[in-house]
Amino acid sequence: MKKFNTSPLSGMQELLPTEQVVFDKLKQNISDVYHHHGFLSIETPIIERTDILLAKAGGDTEKQIYFVNKTAESADAPDQALRFDHTVPLARYVVEHNNDLAFPFCVTQINRNFRGERAQRGRFREFYQCDADIIGREKLPIAYDAKVIACIYDALKTFNLPKMRIRLSNRKVLSGFLETLNLTKKSAEISDVIDHAEKIPLEASREKLEKLGLDREQVRKVCDFMFVRGSYEEAERKLNDILDGNTEKVAEGLNELKIVTNLLAKQCEDANIDVDFMIIRGLDYYTGTVFETFLEDYREIGSISSGGRYENLASNFTEQKFPGVGGSIGLTRLFFVLNEIGLIKTDSENLPIDYCILPFGEDEYDFALKVAKELQKEGNVVDIDYNETKLGKRLDRASKIARFAIVIGDSEASSREVEIKDLETGEKAKRQF
Amino acid sequence: MKKFNTSPLSGMQELLPTEQVVFDKLKQNISDVYHHHGFLSIETPIIERTDILLAKAGGDTEKQIYFVNKTAESADAPDQALRFDHTVPLARYVVEHNNDLAFPFCVTQINRNFRGERAQRGRFREFYQCDADIIGREKLPIAYDAKVIACIYDALKTFNLPKMRIRLSNRKVLSGFLETLNLTKKSAEISDVIDHAEKIPLEASREKLEKLGLDREQVRKVCDFMFVRGSYEEAERKLNDILDGNTEKVAEGLNELKIVTNLLAKQCEDANIDVDFMIIRGLDYYTGTVFETFLEDYREIGSISSGGRYENLASNFTEQKFPGVGGSIGLTRLFFVLNEIGLIKTDSENLPIDYCILPFGEDEYDFALKVAKELQKEGNVVDIDYNETKLGKRLDRASKIARFAIVIGDSEASSREVEIKDLETGEKAKRQF
Repeated sequence: MKKFNTSPLSGMQELLPTEQVVFDKLKQNISDVYHHHGFLSIETPIIERTDILLAKAGGDTEKQIYFVNKTAESADAPDQALRFDHTVPLARYVVEHNNDLAFPFCVTQINRNFRGERAQRGRFREFYQCDADIIGREKLPIAYDAKVIACIYDALKTFNLPKMRIRLSNRKVLSGFLETLNLTKKSAEISDVIDHAEKIPLEASREKLEKLGLDREQVRKVCDFMFVRGSYEEAERKLNDILDGNTEKVAEGLNELKIVTNLLAKQCEDANIDVDFMIIRGLDYYTGTVFETFLEDYREIGSISSGGRYENLASNFTEQKFPGVGGSIGLTRLFFVLNEIGLIKTDSENLPIDYCILPFGEDEYDFALKVAKELQKEGNVVDIDYNETKLGKRLDRASKIARFAIVIGDSEASSREVEIKDLETGEKAKRQF
Repeated sequence: MKKFNTSPLSGMQELLPTEQVVFDKLKQNISDVYHHHGFLSIETPIIERTDILLAKAGGDTEKQIYFVNKTAESADAPDQALRFDHTVPLARYVVEHNNDLAFPFCVTQINRNFRGERAQRGRFREFYQCDADIIGREKLPIAYDAKVIACIYDALKTFNLPKMRIRLSNRKVLSGFLETLNLTKKSAEISDVIDHAEKIPLEASREKLEKLGLDREQVRKVCDFMFVRGSYEEAERKLNDILDGNTEKVAEGLNELKIVTNLLAKQCEDANIDVDFMIIRGLDYYTGTVFETFLEDYREIGSISSGGRYENLASNFTEQKFPGVGGSIGLTRLFFVLNEIGLIKTDSENLPIDYCILPFGEDEYDFALKVAKELQKEGNVVDIDYNETKLGKRLDRASKIARFAIVIGDSEASSREVEIKDLETGEKAKRQF
């Protein structure tokens, strides 16, 4: 017999049923909250045209993409591939169906994406992303930025996590600030330095900036800038201390930040909300609000949700303008990390079955079915065990998956009274069916 | 600007939000019912090793498989591919995790599979299958066959469909019957004829059987056999009329059919349950019970769920024996078909939002958020519209997505009393927040 490797492919998360039930619960919670905030669910195909997916790629995306070939067709030019995020398919969807959608289009996608990243512990090649986006036509008021962030925050709250901190910035502030320093041309490189500053010593960031050709004063100002954080008022004051002159862009960015922080304060009462100019969220794409959410006491695990405002969702596919704002929870990675640090439990506390019913033999099947139906009607998850092995072995199986066991012999079937055994405590209770 | 084709790839179902909400509801219903019957949810990766997927393929499967290539890796020998069903990954899962599972393992998989079939209307290349399976170790009592069928029937009942008919057979009966005719060697070919008999005239089936070399008497008997249907008792009587002598296989198959029909009669009270020897379910794989479910008045759409018993789930991957029984609802196709014949509605009756709140301007955001929060707490789906366009246009959007609209101006915000407008009837009601 040929020997097969039956482990899942590297980079794929595969859970046992007791873990899956926890994962599914978290996913359902996110979905429910998004839904209650008015986000409509859509589901785009996992396979898309390669040219759609790579219309704006470059960088890692192209290296990480999974191409798809049908044997029957030519394998030379793979024109189909697996999506690597929800945003590109969403752009295609909005362009394709825009006449049938009501804008602003509040949309959620909770599904798997695929990236052939270097396999390593805690990094996944197939992963759930739980996206919430709001797409406008031509215009999208800034209040929607707060709506997305508050919705994602509410979803995370269902995880019963410790205190969260929402860190907010606005890319227009950075742009305007770099204008005042005559550094607009280097804004991509400088953004990249700020984006990575949190994980390295300040001195290393300084050196990077010097290498980019910034003079000493510019380096000092950029470093001061990226450490601006606090309430909106604090951030505005600190920024004004650094700023030489003012620009329309800075004013616009600050005004947006003010509106968003105000609205968030009303919606996320129990979060710490910081304006924090170190938040960048990668190089291009975002054009206004950017945000990340952290666990206050577990900064080391990184952001647990993030997103921002983009000027134009579908600029690669259409001349029409669809500004949007969105955010995402990377559930597969988050589940892995929270499980590792013990903030979610996937052990036997999560028994997937409420009642396991064990009829002795065929004669008791009738009554067992009746008991099962009644318990199911009450909302319980009920398993009937038809095994013909020894009762001890059957109870052993029951205790692995269920909270209660009900053994049904002929006396139970005739009296219609059963004993409900709590499989953890051993306690017993009678009940008539 | 490059012109992109933004339609989904051929063979992919892509729904509008108002359709998606119906689809998601059906999927959730199936999942809930499976779950309440004690089936545990698992989720295997969409990408698997090619050798695992093709360990037992042949036939169409290999032609329809989607191979997956990472650019960075060699494209010559695609060793990864997309799963085409849930059964092969389940076999791998059970072998890989068997020490951590409690057997019989009642398991459900509700997810997408991929087959590059010839694209045609109503045929999908990416499709949801809602599988429920029960896997035993070494042995699996026959009562589980009824459990799977009843569970799937209960799931279909949540669709509010007209009367259903469950058609049951048992492959052992056919095997035993062919033994008595000395036709065991041609059993695959004969099964194939019976499998296709329903869609062609009897004369054509007769000709096929003659071409296989059956003599006139054998042809007559096989044709009589495949038209045996009715209650278990009727079927047994009709079969005995045809049968020359008896065999152990026939007796075993009949006994299993009797147990399964008896148990089903108790669990699926409002279904028509038929023993029907024309049910085959393809060539290999199944070894005992086979079933299909039909809509009594819509036979032309074919079976709406199906499945059966297999002797050995993972025979390609291990020497251990895992007998199983399972069934599946092909949700993507079923949704398409039921929508076409009008048995499910995806029009505006299914407005995804309960309340759309329309604050006049920033000053009313506070109160709008308060109203939204309160309505959400009551379980409602609430959208806040922050658009700055004219009220008429905003109400127009609301009426496309929501049942009720609440406009909030300064008088509402100060009096805390709002008018709730029913967007269909135009009726208005006051409420204090």
